[in-house]
Amino acid sequence: MSSPLYIVKIGGNVIDNPEALTEFLRHFAALDGHKVLVHGGGKIATRLAADLGIQAKMVEGRRITDEEMLRVVTMVYAGLTNKQLVASLQSHGCNALGLSGADGNSITAVKRPVNQINYGFVGDLYPDSVNTVSLSKLLNEGFTPVFSAITHDGHGQLLNTNADTIASALAVSLAALYTTSLVYCFEKRGVLRDVNDEYSVIPKIQADDFEELKKKGVIADGMIPKLHNAFEAITNGVDEVYIGHASDLHLLTQKTFGTRMTH
Amino acid sequence: MSSPLYIVKIGGNVIDNPEALTEFLRHFAALDGHKVLVHGGGKIATRLAADLGIQAKMVEGRRITDEEMLRVVTMVYAGLTNKQLVASLQSHGCNALGLSGADGNSITAVKRPVNQINYGFVGDLYPDSVNTVSLSKLLNEGFTPVFSAITHDGHGQLLNTNADTIASALAVSLAALYTTSLVYCFEKRGVLRDVNDEYSVIPKIQADDFEELKKKGVIADGMIPKLHNAFEAITNGVDEVYIGHASDLHLLTQKTFGTRMTH
Repeated sequence: MSSPLYIVKIGGNVIDNPEALTEFLRHFAALDGHKVLVHGGGKIATRLAADLGIQAKMVEGRRITDEEMLRVVTMVYAGLTNKQLVASLQSHGCNALGLSGADGNSITAVKRPVNQINYGFVGDLYPDSVNTVSLSKLLNEGFTPVFSAITHDGHGQLLNTNADTIASALAVSLAALYTTSLVYCFEKRGVLRDVNDEYSVIPKIQADDFEELKKKGVIADGMIPKLHNAFEAITNGVDEVYIGHASDLHLLTQKTFGTRMTH
Repeated sequence: MSSPLYIVKIGGNVIDNPEALTEFLRHFAALDGHKVLVHGGGKIATRLAADLGIQAKMVEGRRITDEEMLRVVTMVYAGLTNKQLVASLQSHGCNALGLSGADGNSITAVKRPVNQINYGFVGDLYPDSVNTVSLSKLLNEGFTPVFSAITHDGHGQLLNTNADTIASALAVSLAALYTTSLVYCFEKRGVLRDVNDEYSVIPKIQADDFEELKKKGVIADGMIPKLHNAFEAITNGVDEVYIGHASDLHLLTQKTFGTRMTH
């Protein structure tokens, strides 16, 4: 059996809360073996853009990354947030190494083609986006990669890429080399049987259950694409996908973190 | 003989000039073997601070790094500038990997003690600051580290450290493992025999010559500390130190870049 690898994604709800973040990083640092952290943005980029008088541009509800906004997210995601996370993990004894997709050519993306909407400097991933050679070198040397959601096109252009997509692409590609668990931290304790009861977490969902739960309307709205993506990752070789709350990360090694999805 | 390693430092005069920067990065990428790039800041940080209404604080001519300014330099140096350099080097076929001192715990610094002046979040280096284990792993795996001038204290605090000092500390520490050349790019073609004649570059200076040139007043003012630091690096094991103009970097392998200092 190949060695285990955890790919853990955190979003703004953790990054923007100093106490929650410290607790999460302590638990993440304590995870044994190979691991990767992927982080999204948080409010700092929005605030910095506002302070600089740069307006967030939205078209049909989708955020546009123009040149000015790309500079802001590169500064905040790949600079401030990434380095603060790395320094904090180092203080907890985890040999973190902050990366954008450009670093070590680890993730190459393609600028989203302009059709109805010009998304600007947004990078989409493709099946060979992840450089598993570079990443396995870093992992096998004992480093813990910490990814900001900035990629590059291989021709000198940085691009803004969705952090969930990065986490999933890393997991699918690295599943060829490691027994890979993909862990999404979000604002709830897991997939809830009753959205109004935060203790109604469904501990385990298999592909067949997913279809059943969708039919019954237990899983609806925003949870459907999340779970769809989870099962797609599993179909593509990822061993298990978890979704749960960052503050429960210490339950991961007992496999009781949030909702666990498997084949 | 151990394998050769180039440590090249560039400053704002290269970073702020897009054409000069592209030419430099092309030459740097073409350098054979192990290499490290160290970059300073440039005007972007100053401009960003001004745009955010953060005033540069100076005490007795020394720049103070308060919490707000630390955020700015972390965003600009470790984020924007570092990632743009890395993406550009990747486009030239160089497997660059951007680092702050926190990444891979590569450079630990100590916050400068408050005496007459409180410099704020400025990090001073000490003899064991450089983690040669982490860095040699990266170098031996074929990565080219690109350092911004941000370090950490190992307890979660990022610090602002002088880029020249970082370059010199890297060279001295890595000289134990590699035959190390330390290369400072600055605004002149080298150490000039006549400050008014940019073609009067002194091609080679040895320690004895330095004393002689100082006595004669050929080397004066700002050049004295630069050369003093160069010879200190050589005394501490660095094979050779160069000082010259970034646009001449292609001359390095013929050892005709700027002024070459040796034992």
